[in-house]
Amino acid sequence: MNKVILASGSPRRREILTQIGVDFEVVVSNEEECPKSSNPLDFPRENAAMKALAVSKMRPGAYVLGFDTLVFLDGKPLGKPKTPEEALEMLQKLNGKTHKVITGVAIAKDAQVVDTQQEETRVLFRENTLHELKDYVNSKDPMDKAGAYGIQTRGARLIKSISGCYYNVVGLPVALTLEMLARQEVEV
Amino acid sequence: MNKVILASGSPRRREILTQIGVDFEVVVSNEEECPKSSNPLDFPRENAAMKALAVSKMRPGAYVLGFDTLVFLDGKPLGKPKTPEEALEMLQKLNGKTHKVITGVAIAKDAQVVDTQQEETRVLFRENTLHELKDYVNSKDPMDKAGAYGIQTRGARLIKSISGCYYNVVGLPVALTLEMLARQEVEV
Repeated sequence: MNKVILASGSPRRREILTQIGVDFEVVVSNEEECPKSSNPLDFPRENAAMKALAVSKMRPGAYVLGFDTLVFLDGKPLGKPKTPEEALEMLQKLNGKTHKVITGVAIAKDAQVVDTQQEETRVLFRENTLHELKDYVNSKDPMDKAGAYGIQTRGARLIKSISGCYYNVVGLPVALTLEMLARQEVEV
Repeated sequence: MNKVILASGSPRRREILTQIGVDFEVVVSNEEECPKSSNPLDFPRENAAMKALAVSKMRPGAYVLGFDTLVFLDGKPLGKPKTPEEALEMLQKLNGKTHKVITGVAIAKDAQVVDTQQEETRVLFRENTLHELKDYVNSKDPMDKAGAYGIQTRGARLIKSISGCYYNVVGLPVALTLEMLARQEVEV
């Protein structure tokens, strides 16, 4: 078993790695997200690489995992809502429709990014009533989440079905991450 | 808000209802599962109805929810493994393939089943190595679970993707259950 470094402060990613029995340590850099691509669909991979790289520079010899998750509707990324009004607006846009969640995954070692990939999951919202959406906004659950919902929390109420990796929607695509680590011959 | 009764002793179903903020009480009957249909695909609905009905007889006036989840490979149901060897055998059958998870949902009130439905989710296993499958069996996680895996536990490692409702695989299809309750005008 190798120990890996998780370059993310997200409690949800920590929980997933713990759940699947991976031995890891959390090291977070202060790097600001600043993607360079003109195509927003590349942002998750660029941000993941940037996070992994920054931590890798601090920890020579270690395998460092970086992640970035974005919600896309009609090709446009939805960030975290700043106000309850903005959360309701986002949820109304997503309501009754399918959107994409993309997580970029990067592995860095010795100040070099050795692999980056991305995973895409499609999420179909139920036809929620305005009352249901407002009720969810009132729960405050949407406020720290891209796209204004959490599939692993009360937000599960809003979702009809998904197609792809469930844990990708939570923020850490388990199968892809394990495959990338296996290709580097990292046993976790 | 109405309070509902959950006719299931499963801690996973309790966790899901708690997660989505439903006010409920657990009442379990001693009824043995004994489906009558000749088609195994009907078993989840029959078992769910039987569980809801048995509890409904004990609690007049209350809305009672019954559930039963089965894993199907090539139309045949897989139960819970009785030994680690049987668990490994089941996992080898599921490995690299798609199978179905079906949960039957029933609502009963005043000793009558008022609605039964079922939800189906397709689950695709990764091409796990024999070493990975044995490692999972050694974790003991498979032993109390239909199909010998838990998607919400360490078993997440084994799964590539799903198509349908994630919580259906865990044992309680959230969207379907909310829709069935809404049709009975039960607010949760």
